Amino acid sequence: MDERIRKQMGFSLEIDKEKNIFRQTHLSGHGRNENDAEHAWHMAIMAYLFREYANEEVDIARVMLMCLIHDIVEIDAGDTYAYDEEGVKTQKAREDAAKERIFSLLPEDQKTELTALFDEFEEYNSPEAKYAHAMDNFQPLILNNSNGGGDWKEHGVSEETVYGRQGKTALGSKKLFEITDMIIQNNVRMENLKKSS
Amino acid sequence: MDERIRKQMGFSLEIDKEKNIFRQTHLSGHGRNENDAEHAWHMAIMAYLFREYANEEVDIARVMLMCLIHDIVEIDAGDTYAYDEEGVKTQKAREDAAKERIFSLLPEDQKTELTALFDEFEEYNSPEAKYAHAMDNFQPLILNNSNGGGDWKEHGVSEETVYGRQGKTALGSKKLFEITDMIIQNNVRMENLKKSS
Repeated sequence: MDERIRKQMGFSLEIDKEKNIFRQTHLSGHGRNENDAEHAWHMAIMAYLFREYANEEVDIARVMLMCLIHDIVEIDAGDTYAYDEEGVKTQKAREDAAKERIFSLLPEDQKTELTALFDEFEEYNSPEAKYAHAMDNFQPLILNNSNGGGDWKEHGVSEETVYGRQGKTALGSKKLFEITDMIIQNNVRMENLKKSS
Repeated sequence: MDERIRKQMGFSLEIDKEKNIFRQTHLSGHGRNENDAEHAWHMAIMAYLFREYANEEVDIARVMLMCLIHDIVEIDAGDTYAYDEEGVKTQKAREDAAKERIFSLLPEDQKTELTALFDEFEEYNSPEAKYAHAMDNFQPLILNNSNGGGDWKEHGVSEETVYGRQGKTALGSKKLFEITDMIIQNNVRMENLKKSS
């Protein structure tokens, strides 16, 4: 077997571990915690379905690939809950080390390509990155909403904290932020989310 | 909320159930059974990484989307193990009913589009469908191989049966079939697969 395909297969086997990285979000129907691979799959399909609502024109293939790989570093770095302030402080250093290790399993050209796409997502600047982030917010939102805001209730999250993260959805999609806002306000009314003081 | 986005959100929530459809394949490291959403995520990334080995030029965005949605019907129809002869007999009828119900949750234009893409995969004719099927074979192959062929041993599968399915990988990628063949022969030597009589 030549070196190139051996590396590509090594990387492919390594990323299987993402199926064991569990998130705070629960599956619909009050199910178990969701893992990163499932979340990425769901985001990629939703990115395709909702693409008409992106603020700017996007290359949907790049968005889908970005969605699929955006959490690969969590194989080493673990999932950091968006509202865990302590975890968020060390997140970047842990994820940078993981990025170097994991993408280095690939042939050099593919390492460069996928690292660039990963970084583009993290930098939050391109139309694709902004829209992919909107999906990263919107996908767990619809699951959590379907479960009566259980993930928020479990962590005692406030309306203000949720807007801090979900507000950025508007950078990628104003339309999806309108829906997000409706969902948040509804969860405040239902007392699933603590009202900001 | 307008009808169109309400339908798109309904479909998005419905497909969450694919995360509860478990396959015969086990995760690497002698892990638990894999589910359909994880399998589709893994296939879509591998399709991108290995696209240089497709026999014909493919539209990789269409291949990735095809990979992501190809098992959605199993939400109703369940997973049919490729080597389960009885299950295979009723598979088409069960999956056709599921396809109609699930894609009908979408707005009409997206129902038409995704149903056509799903059917294209099933028909196994286009370059994209042949290459996506190669991934549908190759992804569980590398997991099973990493586990010492445990999924084959569990079902007492023979070399001949495996070639019946995996042989078609060559229609999408001759190169990936060469690797497949090496893996199968190695598993026959290790007695993980029953030698054909």
